[in-house]
Amino acid sequence: MEDTVVLKFGGSSVKDHDHLRAVAKRIIEKKEMVKNVVVTVSAMGDTTDELIEKAKKIDNNPSKREMDQLLVTGEQITIALLAMMIQSLGHDAISLTGQQAGFVTYGHHGRQKIDNINPKRVIRGLKENKIVIVAGFQGINDIGDQTTLGRGGSDTSAVALAAKLNCPCEIYTDVDGIYTVDPRIFPDAKRNDYLSYEEVMEMASLGAGVIASRAVELAYRYKVPLYIGRSTGKSIGTRIEESRLEKNTITNISVLKNILLVDLKSDHLKNKSAHVFKELAGADVNIDVISLNSNTNNQNIYFTTTEESKNDIELLFKEEEIEANFQEGIVKVSVIGDAMRNQSGIAARAFGVLVDNHIDFYQVSTSEISISFLIDGKNEATAVRGLAREFNL
Amino acid sequence: MEDTVVLKFGGSSVKDHDHLRAVAKRIIEKKEMVKNVVVTVSAMGDTTDELIEKAKKIDNNPSKREMDQLLVTGEQITIALLAMMIQSLGHDAISLTGQQAGFVTYGHHGRQKIDNINPKRVIRGLKENKIVIVAGFQGINDIGDQTTLGRGGSDTSAVALAAKLNCPCEIYTDVDGIYTVDPRIFPDAKRNDYLSYEEVMEMASLGAGVIASRAVELAYRYKVPLYIGRSTGKSIGTRIEESRLEKNTITNISVLKNILLVDLKSDHLKNKSAHVFKELAGADVNIDVISLNSNTNNQNIYFTTTEESKNDIELLFKEEEIEANFQEGIVKVSVIGDAMRNQSGIAARAFGVLVDNHIDFYQVSTSEISISFLIDGKNEATAVRGLAREFNL
Repeated sequence: MEDTVVLKFGGSSVKDHDHLRAVAKRIIEKKEMVKNVVVTVSAMGDTTDELIEKAKKIDNNPSKREMDQLLVTGEQITIALLAMMIQSLGHDAISLTGQQAGFVTYGHHGRQKIDNINPKRVIRGLKENKIVIVAGFQGINDIGDQTTLGRGGSDTSAVALAAKLNCPCEIYTDVDGIYTVDPRIFPDAKRNDYLSYEEVMEMASLGAGVIASRAVELAYRYKVPLYIGRSTGKSIGTRIEESRLEKNTITNISVLKNILLVDLKSDHLKNKSAHVFKELAGADVNIDVISLNSNTNNQNIYFTTTEESKNDIELLFKEEEIEANFQEGIVKVSVIGDAMRNQSGIAARAFGVLVDNHIDFYQVSTSEISISFLIDGKNEATAVRGLAREFNL
Repeated sequence: MEDTVVLKFGGSSVKDHDHLRAVAKRIIEKKEMVKNVVVTVSAMGDTTDELIEKAKKIDNNPSKREMDQLLVTGEQITIALLAMMIQSLGHDAISLTGQQAGFVTYGHHGRQKIDNINPKRVIRGLKENKIVIVAGFQGINDIGDQTTLGRGGSDTSAVALAAKLNCPCEIYTDVDGIYTVDPRIFPDAKRNDYLSYEEVMEMASLGAGVIASRAVELAYRYKVPLYIGRSTGKSIGTRIEESRLEKNTITNISVLKNILLVDLKSDHLKNKSAHVFKELAGADVNIDVISLNSNTNNQNIYFTTTEESKNDIELLFKEEEIEANFQEGIVKVSVIGDAMRNQSGIAARAFGVLVDNHIDFYQVSTSEISISFLIDGKNEATAVRGLAREFNL
């Protein structure tokens, strides 16, 4: 639809009466510029956590269907109150649950994927000149049960709706946009005015948590122009669009923390490796980088995972004559940018920074637009600052 | 359906974790005796009031559609948590929103009436041997908007579902059943083991607030056997069924408080009376008993209403040359029972009690099974005790 935009506001932007009022005003400002305004929102503040806590008090592992039935109420409270707030400020608005907005989902309760959207009621609301407020993070499945989209669900709802309405999507949050480096680590970091979908996807999976990678993937697939900015004030945020052919920059240093480096040692381990990884998958241990070393007798498998998996891994190999050694407090520092694609020497410059600063690394992995180093957590700040200066971030 | 029962628990019975647990156990006890158990519940404790407060802070007169969208979440939280609680105690359960349970409603938002119920998913749940937990007080209308049933809505949901499933309905609350007199006024009051639908409807409209009259009317129309009892403990409650032909008792003294007696005085008031009552209706003043007195010149209209209407009435007649006098603190004491139907002398005995106790009354009104006296609030206790003794309650 022409002259249409989908706005998304997260839980902290609507956490209480005053924030809800500020968001309502922001939406009305937008409505005075753009004819059709659709808004998706999350549950207010800590509502979702409070509901989860109530459920966990009853049963530490409650039915996932009932958990969804419970959690969808969080966003449903926000949409009704936000619609009332906009109405009290003199504009017409209508709230729609995920079901009413036509979100049909599939998969496992608690982490559903969007099958399709039938936005009939959204479009009808827009035609009636109403601001349409949609509950993010939720839909219904084919038997009419309420469902939730899991992590990053509200961003995904917003982007999916924008894809369906063929319009841009603006994600409002409590930061100014996406920075070259986390400003808490490197205070001189700059905000990126522009990033490509590929760069943001790489960042999202390498630890920069501004937007869910799943939502960026969807935007990339359906060519939805994205904007990420602060929900209050006048500052300008970051636009995310298709990669520009002639653009050659390094745009981001991301840091992924709490990595556990696991070293499995056993005779003839190579022959057991398929078995080992099957066991790990069965225990829901998420594995990132893997490498194998072997000499004549002893063989090692190194891999990285999250620190929370340590107990599961210890239990798994206790009975298997496999020795598991752990190194905790590892971080993965990544240099990301489209420049990696067609500019040689970036990797060499990154290696140079680590060597000059006497920082050892355990592993290096690369993708088309990134290079990542596993280093000790104690060297994180030095590495990030050195790399940020080298690439002028 | 054979071997089926609908249970209803109010908000105070499920107000926190411990109450929810007690209710879950009660439901499981029932399930061990009756094959098919359906439960309807209200929002936990003060949840509904808290949601209303949030809305009123935004707008003192919020959109009724959005208010419904907001309020339905209250019951939806309860059903999910109650289903989890039952599951944690080892029984299978499924929660259904009003929409999922098939409640279709019509009318004005905030006070909808039930059009029909399509209990497909309720029956499927029962066939799978699950305890089915249904959100009371709610449904959807013909355009798919969520709706609420207004005052007494949860009782009405329970009875309507029982009517549709052709089974009895048990309403659990924080009292033992329906007493002959409010025990707070007359401590010697007895619990009625049995009452007729007509008696309970009369009581509900004359001030005894144990069950919504709307729900009893529905039970009466569809011949749904009702039971009202305490949600905890082993005490026996009150059964409500069809009137027994041979039953001849007085079963209840009800008291309706905060009545305002209005005396309108004006020349030729009789000619203005249609206009007067039209104005009162326009101002939403609820009128109960009316009487007219006239002598040659001055004419009076007396009527009763609630004390909250005083300001509205004063405003209404300030400009109309009609003098309005008010008498506050009036109560209506009613004697109710099937015995009134076919036993003469009941009215005379009731009058006798008031005369013997030197209690003046302003008005008397009667129905087929009740007689009501308007008296000063200061005489309430004496009148109730005297009547209760006279009719051996």
